[in-house]
Amino acid sequence: MQKYFISTEELNNRKITSSDAFHIRNVMRSKIDDLIIVACDEIQYKAKITEITNDYVAFLEVEKLENLTELPVNVHIFQGYAKGDKMDEIVKHSTELGATSIVATMMKRSIVKLEDKKISSRIERFKKIAKEAAEQSFRVRIPSVSIETLKKIDFSSYDLKLVCYEENAKNNELVNFKRAIKGLILGQNVAVVIGPEGGIDKDELDYLTNLGFIPCALGPRILRTETASFYVLSSISYELELKE
Amino acid sequence: MQKYFISTEELNNRKITSSDAFHIRNVMRSKIDDLIIVACDEIQYKAKITEITNDYVAFLEVEKLENLTELPVNVHIFQGYAKGDKMDEIVKHSTELGATSIVATMMKRSIVKLEDKKISSRIERFKKIAKEAAEQSFRVRIPSVSIETLKKIDFSSYDLKLVCYEENAKNNELVNFKRAIKGLILGQNVAVVIGPEGGIDKDELDYLTNLGFIPCALGPRILRTETASFYVLSSISYELELKE
Repeated sequence: MQKYFISTEELNNRKITSSDAFHIRNVMRSKIDDLIIVACDEIQYKAKITEITNDYVAFLEVEKLENLTELPVNVHIFQGYAKGDKMDEIVKHSTELGATSIVATMMKRSIVKLEDKKISSRIERFKKIAKEAAEQSFRVRIPSVSIETLKKIDFSSYDLKLVCYEENAKNNELVNFKRAIKGLILGQNVAVVIGPEGGIDKDELDYLTNLGFIPCALGPRILRTETASFYVLSSISYELELKE
Repeated sequence: MQKYFISTEELNNRKITSSDAFHIRNVMRSKIDDLIIVACDEIQYKAKITEITNDYVAFLEVEKLENLTELPVNVHIFQGYAKGDKMDEIVKHSTELGATSIVATMMKRSIVKLEDKKISSRIERFKKIAKEAAEQSFRVRIPSVSIETLKKIDFSSYDLKLVCYEENAKNNELVNFKRAIKGLILGQNVAVVIGPEGGIDKDELDYLTNLGFIPCALGPRILRTETASFYVLSSISYELELKE
């Protein structure tokens, strides 16, 4: 069953009018009585298609579905802005792996310098990638995406703050990350800062540790910047969602 | 310190003659007395550069380094051949995350059909990506890479065999993967089969389960094919390498 995020108005009218209507009609070639999943405001329904026109796809809810696909803690990824199409890759896979938000973060060693006029189009691009990845992975929530500068971010409201630091990996520090994740309580908010390609500047590390961030290694190997968030989110899912 | 995999001959002669010599001289612009790491046959040394010529870079070992960067179990990824540049991405990140081998596996729903003459050039490409990723992540071992057809692979010698199956995720089966990983003994060999974009065909699933493969979900979300190996390797690192 294909899943679609719809607006409150579309849910109230039981009619999908966005570009998803085109997708249902022309890409999936759905027919009357076919089943889809519609999600709105973190609630989702199995629904039956009742009418397909050039302007909309009408549906009727069949069954409310339980939310089983969101991580039990909120993981906010503050990703040092990386070059090329790496940010696209990070937004896509971090969404699949359950991130609550992804903040593309301008840091000292970020090579990319975005002009102001480019920021909004870049955010729109990330939002589209996040929406598609959330639908594909059957999430009920689309992660929020934004672009910020590290030192302008308010980190005061997080329950746990981690900064991935490659010197910890080189020094074979293998305790901090696991101990922190095992100490999490369901519903808590976790901030994870990941440096860009060149890593985290010493000055930024000091700034973050002064704010209560714990430097940690993600295993003994040195991960590329785009791989770090995958390790963080996969491990949190393994620890908190999988059972023995 | 930059790391280089060198041949037995280069180690015996204490001279790097491959294209890495060019990298040391022209890309890193190293000087006499600069330190590098050289690795050969899973042994690695901190070494000091003693001479730089147009033909070679000579070095002297300073210190033998302990191997701390290899996963304590051998994880062999059998990745359903995926289209576009996804296989490159999988080889790169799976190497960083510690895979022992990556077998690009032709399966029923693989869209890519490789002509015989293309196979060897594709393998050379994957080998190059794996070597660079192993150097960058400070591994002592370069994972082997190959291209095989699923039903021609001999799976008889693995201690644990897992097949990632999205229906398990949809049915909220969250036990099989973690239970299997927690049961591993150091040094064991694990085979993990991941389907291509279209997933695993029912006939292939039956074939694998008959060979003793355990179907498992990687959390409750449906992961894209290129994300599955990242989840598997990250979780195994988290479970077996990180400490509380």
